[in-house]
Amino acid sequence: MFVFNGETNRQGRRIPQHYAMAVFTRFKSAVRWRYIPPCSVYRRRLDPGPLLRPAESVPERRVHHGGAESAAPRRRPFSRVTADDLVFFRGVLPGRVITDPDVLESCNVDWLKTVKGNSEVLLRPKTTDEVSQILRYCNARNLAVCPQGGNTGLVGGSVPVFDEIILSTALLNRVLAFDTISGILTCQAGCVLESLSEYADKQDFVMPLDLGAKGSCHIGGNVSTNAGGLRLLRYGSLRGTVLGLEVVLADGRVLNLLASLRKDNTGFDLKQLFIGSEGTLGVVTAVTILCPRKPRSINVAFLGCSSFQNLLKTFHMCRGMLGEILSAFEFLDASCMSLLENHLKLTNPISESPFYIVIETAGSNSAHDEEKLHNFLDKVMTSSLVTDGTVATEEAKIKALWSLRERVTEALRHDGYTYKYDISLPVEKIYDLVTDMKEHLGSRAKNVVGYGHVGDGNLHLNVISPTKDVGLLAAIEPYVYEWAARCRGSISAEHGLGLKKRNFIYYSKVPEAVALMANIKAMLDPRGILNPYKTLPDDAHSR
Amino acid sequence: MFVFNGETNRQGRRIPQHYAMAVFTRFKSAVRWRYIPPCSVYRRRLDPGPLLRPAESVPERRVHHGGAESAAPRRRPFSRVTADDLVFFRGVLPGRVITDPDVLESCNVDWLKTVKGNSEVLLRPKTTDEVSQILRYCNARNLAVCPQGGNTGLVGGSVPVFDEIILSTALLNRVLAFDTISGILTCQAGCVLESLSEYADKQDFVMPLDLGAKGSCHIGGNVSTNAGGLRLLRYGSLRGTVLGLEVVLADGRVLNLLASLRKDNTGFDLKQLFIGSEGTLGVVTAVTILCPRKPRSINVAFLGCSSFQNLLKTFHMCRGMLGEILSAFEFLDASCMSLLENHLKLTNPISESPFYIVIETAGSNSAHDEEKLHNFLDKVMTSSLVTDGTVATEEAKIKALWSLRERVTEALRHDGYTYKYDISLPVEKIYDLVTDMKEHLGSRAKNVVGYGHVGDGNLHLNVISPTKDVGLLAAIEPYVYEWAARCRGSISAEHGLGLKKRNFIYYSKVPEAVALMANIKAMLDPRGILNPYKTLPDDAHSR
Repeated sequence: MFVFNGETNRQGRRIPQHYAMAVFTRFKSAVRWRYIPPCSVYRRRLDPGPLLRPAESVPERRVHHGGAESAAPRRRPFSRVTADDLVFFRGVLPGRVITDPDVLESCNVDWLKTVKGNSEVLLRPKTTDEVSQILRYCNARNLAVCPQGGNTGLVGGSVPVFDEIILSTALLNRVLAFDTISGILTCQAGCVLESLSEYADKQDFVMPLDLGAKGSCHIGGNVSTNAGGLRLLRYGSLRGTVLGLEVVLADGRVLNLLASLRKDNTGFDLKQLFIGSEGTLGVVTAVTILCPRKPRSINVAFLGCSSFQNLLKTFHMCRGMLGEILSAFEFLDASCMSLLENHLKLTNPISESPFYIVIETAGSNSAHDEEKLHNFLDKVMTSSLVTDGTVATEEAKIKALWSLRERVTEALRHDGYTYKYDISLPVEKIYDLVTDMKEHLGSRAKNVVGYGHVGDGNLHLNVISPTKDVGLLAAIEPYVYEWAARCRGSISAEHGLGLKKRNFIYYSKVPEAVALMANIKAMLDPRGILNPYKTLPDDAHSR
Repeated sequence: MFVFNGETNRQGRRIPQHYAMAVFTRFKSAVRWRYIPPCSVYRRRLDPGPLLRPAESVPERRVHHGGAESAAPRRRPFSRVTADDLVFFRGVLPGRVITDPDVLESCNVDWLKTVKGNSEVLLRPKTTDEVSQILRYCNARNLAVCPQGGNTGLVGGSVPVFDEIILSTALLNRVLAFDTISGILTCQAGCVLESLSEYADKQDFVMPLDLGAKGSCHIGGNVSTNAGGLRLLRYGSLRGTVLGLEVVLADGRVLNLLASLRKDNTGFDLKQLFIGSEGTLGVVTAVTILCPRKPRSINVAFLGCSSFQNLLKTFHMCRGMLGEILSAFEFLDASCMSLLENHLKLTNPISESPFYIVIETAGSNSAHDEEKLHNFLDKVMTSSLVTDGTVATEEAKIKALWSLRERVTEALRHDGYTYKYDISLPVEKIYDLVTDMKEHLGSRAKNVVGYGHVGDGNLHLNVISPTKDVGLLAAIEPYVYEWAARCRGSISAEHGLGLKKRNFIYYSKVPEAVALMANIKAMLDPRGILNPYKTLPDDAHSR
């Protein structure tokens, strides 16, 4: 049985310090060659922004359905942890009940440093049975629990709001099985995504999801938040690739849904309830996931576009000409590039452009893939849709190009206090929101930037302010949500609702749906101990 | 607004009467040319087998969990339809309340002619509001309702068991919207799959699912049964491609979940509850589904294999060499071919083999696809994994080759009384079950045949008897379910549980999961009026 060293794997990974952009030699005419100077080491947990208590971290507003909602939740009448409780926990988890304030500090704060809880206990179970014992006890004692994976979420879903017990999946980090014929992987929930990627790679497979936080995030957290990421365009969402789950319910019952079959129509698909419900319905302890075969050929192109209209035309042409080998179509705007250059000292490998595109192809025949990509690049450059570009085929260089897209989130943290929005829209409208928001906010915002997953119609809109600014926030919200709702978009494409967005759910879901969600929550977790104050709006609990 | 003529589209479609197999001219050396004589007209609803009342249609057995379960359910204490009820229905659906016994006859019987109900009312709503009014009334009156789409299901899920009111989706047959940029289709639930395929084709897209019953089945039925079919290998399951649903709940509440976004993480994904729950939790009235771009190049190869072991090696090689262009890998055994020849007068286009494979490629560049396919065929033929084969590139010829796989179900109906099993297994074991069952049954069975979706590990096992044979059935069940359970397979990969398999759910699901399903059913349909006696085991209702 393969055991990951969770500590090591959750360190920030490094990418090579010196590298040059590859040139796609067969297509020199179309693609420029560039040298990128040494880049900085990849680090994730630097430079905390201003710390906020939960009472301040959620904007004060009225949801468009229901009455006045206080932005910060009130502590619900859960029990408080006693010395007797600690004795029980220590009996179940010898040496793995953490009460050291220094250790607790980092688990009480989210990655963005915008939400901070006051938990005094961190539990680190290693087995499903331990999770079951803990939850059975907590449910009986009416103790609230916050399940925590890699704590990389962006909506305050993975940290306690008050004194909830933190239930970490960090030591649930074993690969349980891997079928080298089918590519079906079964592992515990605390395996780090990047470690799983490396493991799958050795077996000639890839994980069906990839995201910037891969060096820290846990697969159980990915599943619980229905993480999207960079490969969704190609391999689809976790709702299709996750074949089975093991979940511990609030009362300690273990629900074994660990099937490893591509097709199974025997009754309702219960695992879907736990995918994307942010730990509010159960704690995911193990996952079965279908890994695609490792593509034999990967190419990444980094292109510049003079307008978003041209970028959309490029996307349309790309889908037609690259077809089945297209595995990602991502974008960032010029402001993002400036942040990468200024704060992370990355270098733009091509000439300055208003928009940049990252295109990845993944296929089984490198000659075919290169020919398709060449034909595509030739067409978009001769038609002036794309103004400049570079292509990489080697792994290190591919990673370097990808980092220009993946590290935007990190660069933003260095620029000030960031208001983050993760919006799904019809693809042709995604940048209109950025343009409109810039105009709407004018000089009140230090910066308004946009990047994201064009292929999925998913914009990451970020508004930056030197410090937290209640006036600015009031200008952004609910403006941004109303904008999304008018386009029938989603106010959270992939980040989830967590603590921060819970009361905005009505912009994307009808009241009947929210009421039904509340019924499901009440059925599965009648005392409401699992990740309270998250996902569902405050008024859902009072119905 | 585009309106399908439902009547016309639900007629059996025709395929060309005369055609010749295409030759893949560039690869003559590897592929044989064959002429196929005129084939028979494609018809679906011929030759009814022996009619059975429900009391006889479900095998008597004990489930391996729980006590003795009578195979046939008892009628639950629902109200019976009165003259006053008919007055109400006629007010809501003028001219669309059918009580003519001749019309009701066909709606009371399933396609296999093995389950027959006694409904005396067929309702044909045209709008969601009509469905809502009907259900609100039926719920208040405690009248049971059987939602019915194209009635092509194979597990008795779409026909009444006793006197349930039949709620047909046949007139809910309008396309509501199609986005030609994203390929997102929104339509009413009663649209026939083949009509939608033709509609999407005109916009240069394809439906993400395809199945033998496409000429009759409704998209709402496909969603409600989570239909798999022939394209799952390429485009994934409906759990990924269905983006939104509109559902009417048992009490008449309309749940509008009709989002048309690829990503939306705002709360629990409620639509998943209704995908695959066979109309027991709500009636699907509209569907939003993501259609992939129409591939520019399609090739179909029909190959012969001397053993299943060689077929598996061919599959393994195929996945590696065809990679991202592989869109289907299906098989049938020699017995299936005999049935096609004997009952449907189809001609085997290649020399006789123990096993036949249908491989489809779908890609964006015909030269690349043909080269990949040529390299693959060259390799499998020179290594003798494949003994003979033919390839088609033209649409009519592709359809002809596909009909050899798609029409096996139809051919089986002509051969006698068929006991049908739809099993998911690890792919390397799927034919072992057929071999083992043949040996186990010996001369008691007239025929034991296997075909199905190799790419999905999904075997269709069929045991044929001249007439219904209780002794034979007792030899098959629970043997077949125990076999599947030992391999951790599924006793219903894609057909669902319906009436026939409901009590066998415990072979694939743990009791805790079934109990939770029963809780969900009770929450959404407290009086149990929606498609009673289906999906959940009898003991789930008595808890």
